[in-house]
Amino acid sequence: MKKLIAIIAGLALAAGAANAQELANFAFGGPRIVSPEIQGDSVTFRLSANYATVVNLSGSWMPNPWGGSIPMQKGADGVWSVKIALPSPEIYTYNFVVDGVSVNDPLNYMVQRDGTRYLNMLMVPGERTENYFPANQRGTVSYKWYDSEILGINRRLTVYTPYGYETSKAKYPVLYLLHGAGGDEEAWTSMGRAAQILDNLIEKGLAEPMIVVMPNGNPNQQAACTMGLPNKEMSWNDPAYQNAYVRSLCEEIVPFIEKNYRVIAKPESRAIAGLSMGGGHTITASILYPEMFDYICPLSAAGSATAEQVKALKDAGVKLYFLACGTTDFLYEGSKALDKTLTEQGLDHIFYESDGGHVWSNWRLYLNTFAPLLFK
Amino acid sequence: MKKLIAIIAGLALAAGAANAQELANFAFGGPRIVSPEIQGDSVTFRLSANYATVVNLSGSWMPNPWGGSIPMQKGADGVWSVKIALPSPEIYTYNFVVDGVSVNDPLNYMVQRDGTRYLNMLMVPGERTENYFPANQRGTVSYKWYDSEILGINRRLTVYTPYGYETSKAKYPVLYLLHGAGGDEEAWTSMGRAAQILDNLIEKGLAEPMIVVMPNGNPNQQAACTMGLPNKEMSWNDPAYQNAYVRSLCEEIVPFIEKNYRVIAKPESRAIAGLSMGGGHTITASILYPEMFDYICPLSAAGSATAEQVKALKDAGVKLYFLACGTTDFLYEGSKALDKTLTEQGLDHIFYESDGGHVWSNWRLYLNTFAPLLFK
Repeated sequence: MKKLIAIIAGLALAAGAANAQELANFAFGGPRIVSPEIQGDSVTFRLSANYATVVNLSGSWMPNPWGGSIPMQKGADGVWSVKIALPSPEIYTYNFVVDGVSVNDPLNYMVQRDGTRYLNMLMVPGERTENYFPANQRGTVSYKWYDSEILGINRRLTVYTPYGYETSKAKYPVLYLLHGAGGDEEAWTSMGRAAQILDNLIEKGLAEPMIVVMPNGNPNQQAACTMGLPNKEMSWNDPAYQNAYVRSLCEEIVPFIEKNYRVIAKPESRAIAGLSMGGGHTITASILYPEMFDYICPLSAAGSATAEQVKALKDAGVKLYFLACGTTDFLYEGSKALDKTLTEQGLDHIFYESDGGHVWSNWRLYLNTFAPLLFK
Repeated sequence: MKKLIAIIAGLALAAGAANAQELANFAFGGPRIVSPEIQGDSVTFRLSANYATVVNLSGSWMPNPWGGSIPMQKGADGVWSVKIALPSPEIYTYNFVVDGVSVNDPLNYMVQRDGTRYLNMLMVPGERTENYFPANQRGTVSYKWYDSEILGINRRLTVYTPYGYETSKAKYPVLYLLHGAGGDEEAWTSMGRAAQILDNLIEKGLAEPMIVVMPNGNPNQQAACTMGLPNKEMSWNDPAYQNAYVRSLCEEIVPFIEKNYRVIAKPESRAIAGLSMGGGHTITASILYPEMFDYICPLSAAGSATAEQVKALKDAGVKLYFLACGTTDFLYEGSKALDKTLTEQGLDHIFYESDGGHVWSNWRLYLNTFAPLLFK
């Protein structure tokens, strides 16, 4: 019996069968279906759906990814397919729409989680995405728990330690990297490819080896929904919860990390960055704790700062203020206003403007751009 | 603009909207759809699919989960639903079949990954599943990389450290926990609920605080497919790769763990357990390295041992030999044969027989059963 299993498994492995549909095809002598299949400058998507009436493809590269879709054609074998021009290098998400129902590609195990949704990924290689693929030297990603007295709950956070951390005796600087509304402590590693980006930048000598801490920015959440823990009931008007998450970040998470990891516990070795809501948290943290972080990077930020608040940062000797926003982002005007205030107050800074809007393609680009500027 | 976003997000959060479909329903005043919904001793599944012709439900609790399915009924609102008797406490997987295409439940973010497939979970609470839900005190789960000279690749493994590891100065015993064919280094934490089981057992004082190491048992793989790394080409007949994974486990992974974690590096503080192919790896490791592990737990194992090999384990002073198998498992006869050899050679052991077959419900049960017996 053992041998029989080994033989079957061996045959399936030898054939490169990768999942149930492929195994079934292999076992019953059918063709092997691949999806998505990148060939030169085109990509083909396929779905076996013999009894479906209409099958469409919807992808984030389309002009209107929420409503746009491309019809797929049914072959004699019941496999629907469509071949399109390969979009420019980026990580896209897509799904099929089978008789009006969104369906993930069962042949593609590359999946992101965005809040409660699982989305198939199409990774198009190229210069822009080079650092989004695995490096040769890879750091550790850990899911840890800390007690928050401010929020009254035990909470999970994600910690990236760079390659070599375990065997080195060195102390490291720390980047606190915050997600946006709808995200959680897995957003930057899942959609943001943060571990891959840092691995690549560090391996290439472009960024300092650093620890990256990615907390959960929803003050009522213990952890990502997938952990199955109930959210805490909170009254949003309760003064006790005013800026509660930012206070927990600076008064609880920073000390927790500095106690449990080999870190350089000084402002010049602390950076804070965040996107959208997390950009707001970044700005708020810099206002409430101007002495804590020497590197401040609000990305597509939902937040603003007054002249006085900016002056306090200048007085504190901030080393880098990296403000980034897409020119079609609905928060672009706010970023321009903050840029103006920073300029007026004479705080040296970078206003990094990119094409596009409020999307992960920009946030990956920003991380890949500002991480090399930290701790130097 | 910031205020407007905050208001929208606040409203959505206040309404408890949890994903895109719910948000859309909320935004457009539609009803909030919940799936699956456990009420008393029934559970209802729902899917919005106005243009589908036939929608069925398929679940792992059904007599024939591979082919069995229950028809769902379409309501006037285009929502298909079916209400069934709640199956007995266990973690089940299920999916919808929309016009012949398997579709995950978009309203259920509780998902397991089984190889290349993502499967929705139905978690039915009860005495049997008590330890599968989150405990109050939770350990850390880390994804680490080690270099294997034997396999010639850098490889990922999963490490669970118990609650309190970071702040304690104690040294811990280690359980090496191996997956089966088709699995990888995430199988035990995803399908096996290993972190939750250990958290609960340790919190209740039923198991010793221990580290659990879950490597990748596919010698050609660097890591789970989701990491997007190419598999190594290996000739399965090459003598160089004979027992290569087991050798890497005992000669590379064990030393790697004992160097990088605070562990008690002695046989009486090392346990090895594995399911199916991993049960075979467990038996092979115990044969090739009889002095290494004092606790040996082959689960639904694809493997056997001779009288002589068992005698060597007895001579080595093994403290626990926990053999487990389901009575309808296709490997049951092999386990009975091993039980007989163990008895004949006078090696004290437990032969734990359970209902059912070669399934994760058994492997969770076995971990929950043998973990309290380790290191005592």
